Amino acid sequence: MHGNHFRPQVIDMSYDFSLNASSDREQIAELDSSDPLAKWRNHFKLPGGITYFDGMSLGPLTIAASEKISEAVEDQWGRGLIRSWNSAGWINAPERVGTLIAPLLGVMDEEVVVGDSTSVNLFRLLIAAIRLRPDRNVIVIESNNFPTDIYVARGVEKLHPHVELRVVEHADLDAAMDHDVAVCLLTHVDYKTSRVHDMAARTARAHEVGAMMLWDLSHSTGAVPLNLNECQVDLAVGCGYKYLNGGPGAPSFMFVAQRHLATLDQPITAWMGHAEPFEFSMDYEPASGIRQLLSGTPMILSLAALEASLGIWNNVDVRAVRAKTVAMSELMIRLIEQEIHDPELRLASPRDPQQRGGHLAFQHPQGYSVMQALIDRGVIGDFRNPDIMRFGFAPLYMKFADVAKAVSELADILERRIWDQAKYQERSAVT
Amino acid sequence: MHGNHFRPQVIDMSYDFSLNASSDREQIAELDSSDPLAKWRNHFKLPGGITYFDGMSLGPLTIAASEKISEAVEDQWGRGLIRSWNSAGWINAPERVGTLIAPLLGVMDEEVVVGDSTSVNLFRLLIAAIRLRPDRNVIVIESNNFPTDIYVARGVEKLHPHVELRVVEHADLDAAMDHDVAVCLLTHVDYKTSRVHDMAARTARAHEVGAMMLWDLSHSTGAVPLNLNECQVDLAVGCGYKYLNGGPGAPSFMFVAQRHLATLDQPITAWMGHAEPFEFSMDYEPASGIRQLLSGTPMILSLAALEASLGIWNNVDVRAVRAKTVAMSELMIRLIEQEIHDPELRLASPRDPQQRGGHLAFQHPQGYSVMQALIDRGVIGDFRNPDIMRFGFAPLYMKFADVAKAVSELADILERRIWDQAKYQERSAVT
Repeated sequence: MHGNHFRPQVIDMSYDFSLNASSDREQIAELDSSDPLAKWRNHFKLPGGITYFDGMSLGPLTIAASEKISEAVEDQWGRGLIRSWNSAGWINAPERVGTLIAPLLGVMDEEVVVGDSTSVNLFRLLIAAIRLRPDRNVIVIESNNFPTDIYVARGVEKLHPHVELRVVEHADLDAAMDHDVAVCLLTHVDYKTSRVHDMAARTARAHEVGAMMLWDLSHSTGAVPLNLNECQVDLAVGCGYKYLNGGPGAPSFMFVAQRHLATLDQPITAWMGHAEPFEFSMDYEPASGIRQLLSGTPMILSLAALEASLGIWNNVDVRAVRAKTVAMSELMIRLIEQEIHDPELRLASPRDPQQRGGHLAFQHPQGYSVMQALIDRGVIGDFRNPDIMRFGFAPLYMKFADVAKAVSELADILERRIWDQAKYQERSAVT
Repeated sequence: MHGNHFRPQVIDMSYDFSLNASSDREQIAELDSSDPLAKWRNHFKLPGGITYFDGMSLGPLTIAASEKISEAVEDQWGRGLIRSWNSAGWINAPERVGTLIAPLLGVMDEEVVVGDSTSVNLFRLLIAAIRLRPDRNVIVIESNNFPTDIYVARGVEKLHPHVELRVVEHADLDAAMDHDVAVCLLTHVDYKTSRVHDMAARTARAHEVGAMMLWDLSHSTGAVPLNLNECQVDLAVGCGYKYLNGGPGAPSFMFVAQRHLATLDQPITAWMGHAEPFEFSMDYEPASGIRQLLSGTPMILSLAALEASLGIWNNVDVRAVRAKTVAMSELMIRLIEQEIHDPELRLASPRDPQQRGGHLAFQHPQGYSVMQALIDRGVIGDFRNPDIMRFGFAPLYMKFADVAKAVSELADILERRIWDQAKYQERSAVT
């Protein structure tokens, strides 16, 4: 079922496990020293003493973002004041930042724009999708979709008395597609297990029954090579603060295939999406291009951070990132198999790297406490109910040695069962 | 029609025009030197050579915001990484910042939260308002409302086949209220003319016919004393980047009267508004308090700037700000009457300061070019089609001498008619 449109080019990208190394340690050092992506680590401001595996929740600060925010605050806001809408290009920032994301999606510059939060953007595009299929009444969604996507879809369902949400198991997705379906909304990479959908096949299946295909790429963009246009995807949203390192709560992007732009009709109509935003006319007339997806005034400071961090991708091939992700995650699995003998620790992600996104998930009944113990030792991953520990791979700033460190600490914690139940029994809000 | 619930206390606040000054110049110097608000100017980073009258479009950078953003970027994002959701209190920032705004609105802390852009927040609250009046089908809105509010309302109308937008002239507002009206949406201070609605009277009229009252306070908050609870207002939104100095595109706030929180039903349901946002359950259950209005992940960096700038209001009485606004705007009118004899320059705001908000509007057939000429001389106001020049008064960082400077430059430009038509004929996007 899984196509090969993002098959990682491990050999081409030269993360070679078959080194003539006398030890794992030696091999890991060799992988890091010959890593063509290693230089990008210097573009990040990583705190000392931390091994960071949580880039799939919040990417770290980049030097470019640090500098750009300072410029946006002191020069643009402070000295330019209102004039910066023109002189600093604030007015075009949503489209300009969109063009930086477009290559990561395999789409045209004029098909991407940065808007509000992922939730608001998804709400907007889901309604737009329904309007493009007015004679249909079903939204298909996966039961283990990112929960907030289901919440958004429930909100959209409630606004449309004729629309019904069809929540189906992963295995039943193909069968659930019929000629009542207006839109199929799927999260490309499962936030928990990291399982990845075959974008081409799922999209083709949606089109087979005449439905629109809307992808949530929050856990994919910057981690997995994407080619939305080749897959003929209709609509997509994605997150700015995970693998794109846009900062906490960075604005989210939207993709609309050019063929839909002329007939698109999004519900949150406001001044930034107007054809003539400064005419202040009484009638709403949408801009003709991707800008029609905008609503209110964009949050310029948050946008500035995202724009700066995206600059890195001008010089990085996401296929190289993908190759290193696969190499790092395969190394982690191999080291865990070698060093950890706790039968309660189980891989919750697909074993085939082709079927995984940018992170690995492991189950353990004490997963919450184990992750807290890891964090106490400076290895930051995260935990998802009920028993999932997640480790994200972000090849732009991570080393193979980070994997060895994480496994070594995990082995020690599990072998000696030294996590303190009492200490970790009260779960904090975010881990 | 205009009540006295925000009658400025000019005498109490001691901006006294009846000084025994031998000249205007001497009187202005005296007003500045005895101004109890003068010290707050030091809390702003104002560029040299600029006299800024555009705080009603974008408030200037505060020192607190400059420092706080740096902390949010370097310490919280850079060093804290994902842990800052708890350790730096990101998770509660929307409510925490809300409590800083609540006193400016005359409401309880737990009735305000900071969310998305003003447009998205308005969309959300307008639909929530309609749902609180399910047996009614009309939204009343003023024809010279801020245009984007009308665009948002058109979007809401389109989503509800039974709902009809009733766009009425200012003079017909009371008559337009009948028992079909679900919600009346008004901008409290007119963005063009600065005319201010009587909040108590308009709200009472809405309640008389059983309608919800939703105020857009974008041009009011931080400029005009407000007492939403005394006026029994139901819902409100407002802007963070005008008189609150939250930075370009700062997030917007929402107010919901506590009596409505238990039955509120907002449409953009997502994880941050969930009762248990970290349970990742499949079913959406709204948080019980004001937090239910949140949708996606808040833009933390933009929120940080707003939070920092709002700190100033802990120590400032908005009635003092109002008194100085009135004094400054009355001074401007008086100086213009004395110094400018161009019959084409006309006050477009109400002559009675009680009926004005935080800015003054003047009409002139060459308004666009005149404003450009002013900006070239370092006096930054703004222009609104077709012929309106706006001058905003922001007493926290403006001096009475700024008024004299603006009038003097304006007099020179108009008297000598020295604006260059050719130079200014191509209108830039934002002035």
